[in-house]
Amino acid sequence: MTRFWPFSTPGIPDDVFKRDKVPMTKEEVRVLTLAKARLAPGQVVWDIGSGTGSLSIEAALLTPGGTVYAIEKNTLGVELGRDNASKIGVDNIVFIQGEAPGVLEKLPDPDRVIVGGSGGYLPQVLQVAMNRLNKKGRLVINAVTMETLTHCTEALSEKNCDIIQVNISRAEPFGKYRMWRALNPVYIIACEKELQA
Amino acid sequence: MTRFWPFSTPGIPDDVFKRDKVPMTKEEVRVLTLAKARLAPGQVVWDIGSGTGSLSIEAALLTPGGTVYAIEKNTLGVELGRDNASKIGVDNIVFIQGEAPGVLEKLPDPDRVIVGGSGGYLPQVLQVAMNRLNKKGRLVINAVTMETLTHCTEALSEKNCDIIQVNISRAEPFGKYRMWRALNPVYIIACEKELQA
Amino acid sequence: MTRFWPFSTPGIPDDVFKRDKVPMTKEEVRVLTLAKARLAPGQVVWDIGSGTGSLSIEAALLTPGGTVYAIEKNTLGVELGRDNASKIGVDNIVFIQGEAPGVLEKLPDPDRVIVGGSGGYLPQVLQVAMNRLNKKGRLVINAVTMETLTHCTEALSEKNCDIIQVNISRAEPFGKYRMWRALNPVYIIACEKELQA
Amino acid sequence: MTRFWPFSTPGIPDDVFKRDKVPMTKEEVRVLTLAKARLAPGQVVWDIGSGTGSLSIEAALLTPGGTVYAIEKNTLGVELGRDNASKIGVDNIVFIQGEAPGVLEKLPDPDRVIVGGSGGYLPQVLQVAMNRLNKKGRLVINAVTMETLTHCTEALSEKNCDIIQVNISRAEPFGKYRMWRALNPVYIIACEKELQA
Repeated sequence: MTRFWPFSTPGIPDDVFKRDKVPMTKEEVRVLTLAKARLAPGQVVWDIGSGTGSLSIEAALLTPGGTVYAIEKNTLGVELGRDNASKIGVDNIVFIQGEAPGVLEKLPDPDRVIVGGSGGYLPQVLQVAMNRLNKKGRLVINAVTMETLTHCTEALSEKNCDIIQVNISRAEPFGKYRMWRALNPVYIIACEKELQA
Repeated sequence: MTRFWPFSTPGIPDDVFKRDKVPMTKEEVRVLTLAKARLAPGQVVWDIGSGTGSLSIEAALLTPGGTVYAIEKNTLGVELGRDNASKIGVDNIVFIQGEAPGVLEKLPDPDRVIVGGSGGYLPQVLQVAMNRLNKKGRLVINAVTMETLTHCTEALSEKNCDIIQVNISRAEPFGKYRMWRALNPVYIIACEKELQA
Repeated sequence: MTRFWPFSTPGIPDDVFKRDKVPMTKEEVRVLTLAKARLAPGQVVWDIGSGTGSLSIEAALLTPGGTVYAIEKNTLGVELGRDNASKIGVDNIVFIQGEAPGVLEKLPDPDRVIVGGSGGYLPQVLQVAMNRLNKKGRLVINAVTMETLTHCTEALSEKNCDIIQVNISRAEPFGKYRMWRALNPVYIIACEKELQA
Repeated sequence: MTRFWPFSTPGIPDDVFKRDKVPMTKEEVRVLTLAKARLAPGQVVWDIGSGTGSLSIEAALLTPGGTVYAIEKNTLGVELGRDNASKIGVDNIVFIQGEAPGVLEKLPDPDRVIVGGSGGYLPQVLQVAMNRLNKKGRLVINAVTMETLTHCTEALSEKNCDIIQVNISRAEPFGKYRMWRALNPVYIIACEKELQA
């Protein structure tokens, strides 16, 4: 299988992905999220709320010999994810149409959990994720709302988590000048299982 | 050689590096810089103004079979870089004490050039870098001053560069609460050789 | 009484204030906080956690014929506040050493409440503030921790509040260049009494 | 004349202004810009590139007994400005349809110059502004492009200017949650005439 992305670093440009009207994690946020996840070959990764599949695909490229489970309740999202994975040439992703936490039961225990969206069941999803994570496992959450951040800090023991807020602007052409366009702020919450015990 | 960092993603925590009073590229900025560099195994990388070596070391981990040339004029910086590389277990870095652009003459043509500092010769360094870069090569610059950004946009053909500004804050313990601490803003300028022709 | 600040706009530079080691609201954050408070001549203003008095002093300049009650538990803070008010030439501030909410009982009902610090009794302080505020009154809170933001959104009916996050950087001299230095992020929460009813 | 805005602080909400498709300085940026301008009663203010008039109107409210000259080349902008001034109840603004620097010749020397847009003649406009400014006069520029910032730092003696970058996000309703929406970054450059001599 030929891969579109021959690099060892994440950061596939946004416009490579088909996205229709499905929300997508932007390149720079994807890169930071994957870095905080500390991926490695052979890992089992759950990507909950996988949307267009952009995070799943980059995670799959970084975990050769491993498997990424991309969970998305929206049917269109699942289709987009499959199309994007096929286009980019990634084959170690299992796309699952369904809703967390229910759909997680049948999956193998993860080394890494990435949460981009949780359909309103975030506290339950976080609890299942922390319980099921393997030793030294890591959980990384992207939050774009105040409430999601609050749910995370309440549900997770604060001592185990490292939280950043990301404000990125891009210089975009504006006539013959370049204008700064801001991406919306994102919180990245990264927690390690081991430290919890 | 055993490696401290077994992951396929960049993002070694800041406190792993010995840094004395040498300025260091912070974890999140390193991650984004390396992503914009689109590293791959076997590449020749120049890291100009390598400081504590943090970027060189992460670049070396991501380019197995390649070589990173870490150029730093400050003797203490070079020593710190060597110590850090040894601690982390990376052996494909050549540390060079010297000043760009002069010191670049004897190096093999690069696939990637990363510029963290240029000791006041930035326009010349950028010109040499763009000239010497191999086909499809990439140049990535970190700028923390307004003037560096201006020099870059003047020296480089605007059409080839992608520029972002990065504002990251970290939630740090503050009594029983967590307070947001801002990292200083950094511009990341990423240019591709191919597009210039 | 001669005033140091002859302007109709807020924004007294930080270095005008004596501050010792007492934390101080930075110029730009002060300006935005006062704007969100919608001050007017003749108002009764409570400034809870007044620190060096910088917000109280600017509020007093903007409410001629009104009174600012500057509440600060730290004795050094109260002294600094008095010194700063005297230096700048403001005489419509009553400095009170004490702790909210207890100390608020004896004060007249406010038109505006500004909360910069609450010594750990934030939920109680917010409740007293909303209860005691006059009709069309406004409550404005500065938060530098995640937990303070959470307390505010929990204690206050969400519909009445307008929340912003402020990330300001200043270009500071760095050799012959200018380097961006980030102020830490601050949330400003502004709530209107009237809308609650 | 009855005023819509009875407060002594700037910060009229964005949705008060009619704006059609004319770009408008956002509330928080307006507030900071006016603060950096250090307005006072009786001043002569030039607002160059006045757009919807939002900055002119707030400046006029803060300079009773003074006059704001609102210069805008776009006819629709001038009309919107007049409508907005009338709605808000401000009568000390002279709206001028024309282009700087030419149109500035016939105006009285200013105490304050605010530049939001300059139709491509920024260097000339800045030179005229600095020359014509009265003693202790101030010039404040809003820049949303990299090039405008560069033009400003080149045209103005660096020692006289104070530069900040403003990144504001607003918490906007998103279902039952609140999502952070970023305003685009703006540079505010504030220069004082006196220090130049």
